[in-house]
Amino acid sequence: MFEAAELGRKLSKQEFDQIEPDLHTALLAAQRSLRETDIPVILIVSGVEGAGKGEVVNRLNKWLDTRGIMTTAFWDESDEERERPAYWRFWRRLPPKGNIGIMFGSWYILPIIDFVFGRIDDAEYEKRLQRIWNFEHMLSEDGALIIKFWFHLSEKNQRKKLEKENKDHKYTPILKKFSKHYKDFAKTSEYAIRMTDQGGSPWHIIEADDKLYRDITIGKIIHDALVTRIQKQSDKPSDLTVNEESIISKICKDLTVLDGVDINKKTTEKNYEKQLKKYQKKLNALSWEARKQNRSTIAMFEGWDAAGKGGAIRRMTACIDARLYKTISVAAPTDEEKAQHYLWRFWRHIPRAGYVTIYDRSWYGRVLVERVEGFAHPIEWNRAYQEINEFEEQLVESGIILCKFWIHITKDEQLRRFKEREKTPWKVHKITDEDWRNRDKWDNYKHAINDMVIHTSTEYAPWSLIPGNDKRVARVEVLKTVCDTLEASLDT
Amino acid sequence: MFEAAELGRKLSKQEFDQIEPDLHTALLAAQRSLRETDIPVILIVSGVEGAGKGEVVNRLNKWLDTRGIMTTAFWDESDEERERPAYWRFWRRLPPKGNIGIMFGSWYILPIIDFVFGRIDDAEYEKRLQRIWNFEHMLSEDGALIIKFWFHLSEKNQRKKLEKENKDHKYTPILKKFSKHYKDFAKTSEYAIRMTDQGGSPWHIIEADDKLYRDITIGKIIHDALVTRIQKQSDKPSDLTVNEESIISKICKDLTVLDGVDINKKTTEKNYEKQLKKYQKKLNALSWEARKQNRSTIAMFEGWDAAGKGGAIRRMTACIDARLYKTISVAAPTDEEKAQHYLWRFWRHIPRAGYVTIYDRSWYGRVLVERVEGFAHPIEWNRAYQEINEFEEQLVESGIILCKFWIHITKDEQLRRFKEREKTPWKVHKITDEDWRNRDKWDNYKHAINDMVIHTSTEYAPWSLIPGNDKRVARVEVLKTVCDTLEASLDT
Repeated sequence: MFEAAELGRKLSKQEFDQIEPDLHTALLAAQRSLRETDIPVILIVSGVEGAGKGEVVNRLNKWLDTRGIMTTAFWDESDEERERPAYWRFWRRLPPKGNIGIMFGSWYILPIIDFVFGRIDDAEYEKRLQRIWNFEHMLSEDGALIIKFWFHLSEKNQRKKLEKENKDHKYTPILKKFSKHYKDFAKTSEYAIRMTDQGGSPWHIIEADDKLYRDITIGKIIHDALVTRIQKQSDKPSDLTVNEESIISKICKDLTVLDGVDINKKTTEKNYEKQLKKYQKKLNALSWEARKQNRSTIAMFEGWDAAGKGGAIRRMTACIDARLYKTISVAAPTDEEKAQHYLWRFWRHIPRAGYVTIYDRSWYGRVLVERVEGFAHPIEWNRAYQEINEFEEQLVESGIILCKFWIHITKDEQLRRFKEREKTPWKVHKITDEDWRNRDKWDNYKHAINDMVIHTSTEYAPWSLIPGNDKRVARVEVLKTVCDTLEASLDT
Repeated sequence: MFEAAELGRKLSKQEFDQIEPDLHTALLAAQRSLRETDIPVILIVSGVEGAGKGEVVNRLNKWLDTRGIMTTAFWDESDEERERPAYWRFWRRLPPKGNIGIMFGSWYILPIIDFVFGRIDDAEYEKRLQRIWNFEHMLSEDGALIIKFWFHLSEKNQRKKLEKENKDHKYTPILKKFSKHYKDFAKTSEYAIRMTDQGGSPWHIIEADDKLYRDITIGKIIHDALVTRIQKQSDKPSDLTVNEESIISKICKDLTVLDGVDINKKTTEKNYEKQLKKYQKKLNALSWEARKQNRSTIAMFEGWDAAGKGGAIRRMTACIDARLYKTISVAAPTDEEKAQHYLWRFWRHIPRAGYVTIYDRSWYGRVLVERVEGFAHPIEWNRAYQEINEFEEQLVESGIILCKFWIHITKDEQLRRFKEREKTPWKVHKITDEDWRNRDKWDNYKHAINDMVIHTSTEYAPWSLIPGNDKRVARVEVLKTVCDTLEASLDT
């Protein structure tokens, strides 16, 4: 989930200065329009210590007209607050309609801290997250716009920040205490984010290492969310626009989680043959062992057109007994499937205990092709993240071993393969007009993939992003990942 | 919650025969229209053992065109099912769009049974209910119409049914096992119903003692839900209508939870003075003790116009030190309050630890006047039940002692009091045109009150329905209830 926020995104001072005035003006215009609506806006500013949440709040107060905003830092409880139900302090600071409430810390801070420091148990943590869910759901059903930011730093970057602040004499004892528990916090926060990631109030995970990138990014998200919502609500046309081709994306190198993939990884033919043999042998044995232990496996493949999904799948099926596996190629839904919830057609193919099911494309179509092509409404694909997480949680809970692959290739490599296919008689059927159309939407897909990994790479069902420019590397990595996952999951 | 389903509602065979053919025809017409929509309908048939769930399913299969329905009894798990995630069996039996799926037992049965028999703990029970919530929420967001029935029998009636069936040689060992745990089941089910009572899939609690009443009632609910939903969805006008003044309500004595109130209760002046003195003295002492123990009290009054709320409140305030209490009269919201969620204005007045707050009218306005007058949309007041339960749960959890009163008078008694007020110079200001208008909507209010008690009388915050035709009885019962609740809650 956090891997997409450790890519080293940056803005130079010059780039910042070029964007900032326009963004500032646009935000003020959006805020002015907001005041004429009945939409209360709740901005949640949370994240790891050292990520500069205080600076963010200051920046927002500088950018926005302070007459329309209420900022609250939820830190120590006052006597007044302690003597009332815990949510009293949140209720009293809710922004009225047409106003923006900036919640620094908010309702997330205490449950996470209490759980990390062992003050509450699993059941209580679950209950508190459920309460948050209900609270936000209630507000958003009532018309509130809730924008939630989680500011992330990698462990290394957090340590650097803290050391620097120590030198600047700003190092607080609290910071020290928190940084020691980096991994606990990461795990606990990931769970909180996943459990509260609603269609009506989705999370934005922001890479916070570079202040300038961080602030411009949230400014843009806030602006776009305000404008989209105001336009949806009001009948009269407005001057506000969300500029997709904004100066920000032009200036700022548009990194996604795919940029973290070591795409240039190569192997030799000789090494490939050796590795392939090794892992195929292993997988054969493991699939029989899984059968014996009554454990099912689901291996699920997504990837760019021509990324080599089919080839990777064939290297798997080549070594598993044909009685043990089933391959499901996900194409357009049948009539029968269209008459059901989109997850229905995946539920129906869940393997019996002990078998292997391989999906060539999957339920992620909802947040990829259906999103990009507009087949699903933004509300629908936004809530799909939580629906999919819930689905996969049920798979894993029931003992299914789940591997999720995205096979990544570069845009150039795709072009090379497309052309090759067109020239090769026995491959020409594999390239269609649709492939070329999809290729035109490369950047839209890139963002959809990035969001997908952020929202659905969970502790129990992480994504494996596989470098695919060298097909041999991809095939071996897939086999190795399946073997490793099986080994880790089966009783030995 | 279940008190509204223990009123002895009945239909004679003759009444049934008069209604049934029309209802049958109307249901078939609705089902025909449904088939042209993309709405899948899920009917959940659940409730206590002995309530005749099997008979209900048979009746529905008789009434409806079987080509459009799928009936599934979720009882033993098959091998096929056991080897897959638990929800696989539910997914595979979901009705396609335009069809009706009757779920006999459904996803509620196992969590409740497992919890009653101690096979799962609190945390796991909570988690399973959360899963149900997510599942139903997902389906209803996707366009499904979910109609949930809980068939209820009082403990006495259940025993009678079982004895009768025993004589008929139909008594099964399962039945015997379940009936021994009546109270555990009631408590566990109440919790399940409360936690899964969503705006999009509300519960209907059905009194199941009389078969004819039971079946006609659900037939009517299903019909009305289908028609309302189909009309909302389709653009073209249809012949289908929901007839509010239906033959059913004309024939069938329209009992509500208010009919269970012993309205003729009377007391003498002498006895009243004695009791009043006794409880006022007690309440004075208890309010100081609560102050000492830092426990707050909220006493909340709802009731018909002229039911005597003010008088009852004055008898309370007369005996509590003025420094300890605050009375809040809930009228139309202020501008500031209108700019917030409807619960906001109640949160703001929550007392500090140790104090008493008395509400003259309350947050229940949402499901009473706002519902009846159409100020709140059905979706809004339907989801308010769960919002209110959540709110009150937070109050009680934080240590607040909560008493909820509905003061009941008969329609005749109200008329007598209205006329008296008009004749009495110092009372004439208390009677307005609005009171007369409200009176015209007596029956609508009656249903709203009934639904309110069903959905919000919880274990931790039960309603007290106070007979008010004799004001003295009402005042003493209120004082006594507050004293009893304080005594039960305070450390002695």
